[in-house]
Amino acid sequence: MSKPITSGDDAPLSLDLSPTATGPFGFGRIPVAKVWPVIEAGAYPVKAVVGELFPIGAKVFREGHDAVNASVILTSPEGVETRVDMQPVGPPGLDAWQGWVRPDAEGAWTFRVEGWSDPWGTWHHNAEAKLAAGMDLELVCLEGRDLLERTAALADEAGDPVEASILRATAQLLIPQRKAPDLLEVANGAGLAEAMRTHGPRDLVTPTADFPLWVDRKRALFSSWYEFFPRSQGASRDEATGHWTSGTFDSSHERLEAAAAMGFDVIYLPPIHPIGNAFKKGKNNTLDATEDDPGSPWAIGSAEGGHDAIHPDLGDWAAFDRFVARAGELNVEVALDFALQASPDHPWVSSHPEWFTTRIDGTIAYAENPPKKYQDIYPINFDNDPVGIYHEVLRLFKVWMSHGVRIFRIDNPHTKPVEFWRWIIERLRETDPDVLFLAEAFTKPEMMAALGKVGFHQSYTYFTWRTTKFELTEYAVELANDMAAYYRPNFFVNTPDINPFHLQSGNPAIFGIRAILAATLSPTWGVYSGFEFFEHEVLAPGREEYLNSEKYEYRPRDYNAEPNLNLLFGTLNSIRRAHPALQQLRQLHFHHASHDGVIAYSKRDGDDVVIVICSLDPDNLVESDVWLDLGALGVTGADSVLLRDELTGASFTWGERNFVRLTPSTPAHILHVLTAP
Amino acid sequence: MSKPITSGDDAPLSLDLSPTATGPFGFGRIPVAKVWPVIEAGAYPVKAVVGELFPIGAKVFREGHDAVNASVILTSPEGVETRVDMQPVGPPGLDAWQGWVRPDAEGAWTFRVEGWSDPWGTWHHNAEAKLAAGMDLELVCLEGRDLLERTAALADEAGDPVEASILRATAQLLIPQRKAPDLLEVANGAGLAEAMRTHGPRDLVTPTADFPLWVDRKRALFSSWYEFFPRSQGASRDEATGHWTSGTFDSSHERLEAAAAMGFDVIYLPPIHPIGNAFKKGKNNTLDATEDDPGSPWAIGSAEGGHDAIHPDLGDWAAFDRFVARAGELNVEVALDFALQASPDHPWVSSHPEWFTTRIDGTIAYAENPPKKYQDIYPINFDNDPVGIYHEVLRLFKVWMSHGVRIFRIDNPHTKPVEFWRWIIERLRETDPDVLFLAEAFTKPEMMAALGKVGFHQSYTYFTWRTTKFELTEYAVELANDMAAYYRPNFFVNTPDINPFHLQSGNPAIFGIRAILAATLSPTWGVYSGFEFFEHEVLAPGREEYLNSEKYEYRPRDYNAEPNLNLLFGTLNSIRRAHPALQQLRQLHFHHASHDGVIAYSKRDGDDVVIVICSLDPDNLVESDVWLDLGALGVTGADSVLLRDELTGASFTWGERNFVRLTPSTPAHILHVLTAP
Repeated sequence: MSKPITSGDDAPLSLDLSPTATGPFGFGRIPVAKVWPVIEAGAYPVKAVVGELFPIGAKVFREGHDAVNASVILTSPEGVETRVDMQPVGPPGLDAWQGWVRPDAEGAWTFRVEGWSDPWGTWHHNAEAKLAAGMDLELVCLEGRDLLERTAALADEAGDPVEASILRATAQLLIPQRKAPDLLEVANGAGLAEAMRTHGPRDLVTPTADFPLWVDRKRALFSSWYEFFPRSQGASRDEATGHWTSGTFDSSHERLEAAAAMGFDVIYLPPIHPIGNAFKKGKNNTLDATEDDPGSPWAIGSAEGGHDAIHPDLGDWAAFDRFVARAGELNVEVALDFALQASPDHPWVSSHPEWFTTRIDGTIAYAENPPKKYQDIYPINFDNDPVGIYHEVLRLFKVWMSHGVRIFRIDNPHTKPVEFWRWIIERLRETDPDVLFLAEAFTKPEMMAALGKVGFHQSYTYFTWRTTKFELTEYAVELANDMAAYYRPNFFVNTPDINPFHLQSGNPAIFGIRAILAATLSPTWGVYSGFEFFEHEVLAPGREEYLNSEKYEYRPRDYNAEPNLNLLFGTLNSIRRAHPALQQLRQLHFHHASHDGVIAYSKRDGDDVVIVICSLDPDNLVESDVWLDLGALGVTGADSVLLRDELTGASFTWGERNFVRLTPSTPAHILHVLTAP
Repeated sequence: MSKPITSGDDAPLSLDLSPTATGPFGFGRIPVAKVWPVIEAGAYPVKAVVGELFPIGAKVFREGHDAVNASVILTSPEGVETRVDMQPVGPPGLDAWQGWVRPDAEGAWTFRVEGWSDPWGTWHHNAEAKLAAGMDLELVCLEGRDLLERTAALADEAGDPVEASILRATAQLLIPQRKAPDLLEVANGAGLAEAMRTHGPRDLVTPTADFPLWVDRKRALFSSWYEFFPRSQGASRDEATGHWTSGTFDSSHERLEAAAAMGFDVIYLPPIHPIGNAFKKGKNNTLDATEDDPGSPWAIGSAEGGHDAIHPDLGDWAAFDRFVARAGELNVEVALDFALQASPDHPWVSSHPEWFTTRIDGTIAYAENPPKKYQDIYPINFDNDPVGIYHEVLRLFKVWMSHGVRIFRIDNPHTKPVEFWRWIIERLRETDPDVLFLAEAFTKPEMMAALGKVGFHQSYTYFTWRTTKFELTEYAVELANDMAAYYRPNFFVNTPDINPFHLQSGNPAIFGIRAILAATLSPTWGVYSGFEFFEHEVLAPGREEYLNSEKYEYRPRDYNAEPNLNLLFGTLNSIRRAHPALQQLRQLHFHHASHDGVIAYSKRDGDDVVIVICSLDPDNLVESDVWLDLGALGVTGADSVLLRDELTGASFTWGERNFVRLTPSTPAHILHVLTAP
């Protein structure tokens, strides 16, 4: 519909009937409302990764009785438009439509929904009603012929002369003298329906605004993280003097290789910068550190440098480059911690005091949450000199990026302005769209969401505190649906900061269960080293902190000690690599298990379907019926399916109702749906 | 925050940190999300009427530990800004804020939310924590003095020197040598809190976009409708010949006066235009009409004229003007039906065939819903000549407006393009903002909503089909909350088209119950005449149509016949006029009644609070406990309230739990909350 419309050269009247007459969100000729996913009315792009399949929906409706229809128009970064049919979904009275898209390249895409008047739908509905009643045969045939011939012309235009010929021939079959059932057979032909779907006219096409869609590389969604402290790898204590020798990048190659062998593809290192001496923390976060205590890696900055320097104990730039290069050989990426705060010894404190907050008494404000004080850390002030600090941080990222780091785990992003992250991520998208940020925010839901919306590629989650079937189901459904467009979960089973209550028993079964849940519920999961040995000693009862935390001391480990989960990790990561269903977030379906201690869900991507049945009880054998929703598995026309357990290799034939027995030592099935038998 | 920010004249770096850096919906320095009510991202204005109190909400949050705060800025049509404080509401973890506004003039307002950094909140929180711990007294006092003196300067600027003096004096009380509890007392002073609320600094103020708010005259929200057919008023049949003499505008004055006496303030007339003869409908919608059948008023247009003409049987323009003038004397408005469709005899059919759809066989398309045909009605085609038909319809409205009609009941708006109504209503808002449209759409929810969003001032509802406590509660809650910003309900108890199942018993009690529910649940309600005599004969079992419908024949009535509901109507409308609580939509609260056949709710506007307890059972005595939520009534510090029953004049003292006995003859209490006793 053009804009404006006038009633001829001699007419003074005109209308502005464009769909944007009331701004980008107003209804046009065919109303389209509630387009989703759209983030903050299009202020931020919806997220997807290359090859990710996801639905776009809208409410589409119109006046009167004529048929309405809808399409998604996807526009690639190069400006190429692709039209995808939408289908009505849900109860017809609610006017919901949906179409599935799968963008195939990185970058800045857009999408819009188009509502349109559907002459074929209108004619077909009328023909069915009238022919069944033997009414108006002449008119039905005349209108049908006209429509088919109009469509044939469109098929010609589209370079499909074969279809055009078929349409013209079909039009000749609409002869009013024929019996109504014969005419109905023509109207209901499957070939005709398909031809009309492809070439049928679309009238009164009414587009919404184009909404932004940012497509990342696949690792933004699908990755397996392993975290270790390089300084602990190969660290040793001189028993005579009590002095420690730090591990180094070079002595960390072994752990890097082991993690890669277990199928992890992102190795995440806590901060590797010089550590301040002022108020240095001792063992277990005490204030009486000795010279032999290495200090917290998050107290960044000393005379030896700040965020763009390497702690001399770990090696030099060449050693760092060797470490990154070795990771590359192993098809593994190195993710660095980025903690934007300073020790009182950080070079910025003297060179750029304006990047901190100076109190009225002339002192620089340290972090505090009164009455608690964190005197070893100065928070950044982003408002005194935004131009300076924003650009300095951008420079820092580029330093590490130039050494091959393309993933950053951002420490406490929720203590910095959301607007700051928006700016940083937009700048990096312009020059280095492959760089990924993981938000380490454990805070209130709106802030967690906002960080995802402004561009964080992955986020820590509440998974660590979701343990019952109800909690896990509710949270996973929220993540896979409402949140999926802006929030990519990274299910860490533990972190140096979090030794969750449910692991404090040390029972190996619960460690296995949590790994299975994390690796199969979320396309990205993570492990902090030590978990595989069931490390669980707690700082104090009622706390969720580790005793003798590696944050404050060297923790060399014997990674080959038995028992451990090394094999399970490898198996899980291998299953994840084999199954696209487990590499995606949005298609998750929960199935009913009669026992509250058994959770059952399936994930799907195209033909690949995986069912997970997992015990939540590390202490007892559990027996349960599991009711499979075969429709959700994509099974039609069969009442049973052939399954292969990817953990054991065993095969089963399951129907709607199935019996499972899970034990602490075999707590789960991960079932590949092979085929309807 | 200005835009752009640069780091000095010699610096090449700059940032765009304005709140609109990512468009009007992006987060700024202090994020504000999910502002409500906002309709289609601001494409259409939120609705209110003059003096209406309603909440504006948002999620407001920020990084780190400093305090956040928020305001609503309301901008009048003249551009005058008013700041309204917001308060946190709901669980603190969810970051929800809310402020109540009450616009006081008609026209195009806007509102925005501003999130801001709150130095007073930050200092006060720190002072409480630190003083309680006896920590940092020196610093707390220094920072407090500085803040109070900064605020005193702001008070001076705001022309409040008294408050400025008090603030400066209070600052002098913050002496670090004092005991911590004494300092805490200063920090917690109520006068200081109020002074800081009024004059305290607001840092990093971050506005959202300005969202549109359209304020109508009060009758758009609060009105009482009475519908009758003028042709029936004083109509008479010559028993000898069987010929009818139509009622006229002049013979309708009596009914107009009676309706006004019952407290109705809108008199709605079905179409008063010439009726076509082609395919004219006979009694009970039959096809064999005789000359004595008057035809359906909705089959508009004949040789005597179309939508801008008056049916000669009803009188001439002078008679119409007399009718409207008499209404004006009675403080009643006349609402006309506007049914945009044509009889085959309508003048447009020959003068503007392009405003209809011509079929491929050359005939003009009549209305149909195959296999049903409505050959007496030609629907309008809005796409052949939008400029012509849009402007012609606008002209028609103006014809009737020039004769004093300022309210139109729009027949079947959902069979015309939503975009068409948007255009018409926008045009009328420009020139005649007092003109009101009631949408007669009984269709799917999205279309009902869309018509409200593009500007219909009132809408018919599903009330007619909501009968159980669950259904009524769920629907009323939806209307009073999510929908209230764009959808003003008009609860008609019946219409010429709808003789609902629950009335078909003819039991007078259910007629009374439905009137009480309609008149108290919704600020606007309506009655189609005949209801007061319990007319209920049904066309056929299982149908919701009246037998001998007035749509197709004359129905003169004896309006003084007993029994009737005339007195109840008068009482209900008088109670509605006395109570602002019943004149508003948004503050509705349901209370628990133990009996499923008893519904209990309260409405509130400022100090005016009304509780309604109504039986839903017209056949039986019902006894129930009613649990009052005293907080929802605004009662604090008392555990009982004094109530006056506005239906009977009886007084009660009620506490939390109360016993009621309702009968078919006394089915309800309408209780004015007088005071806590």
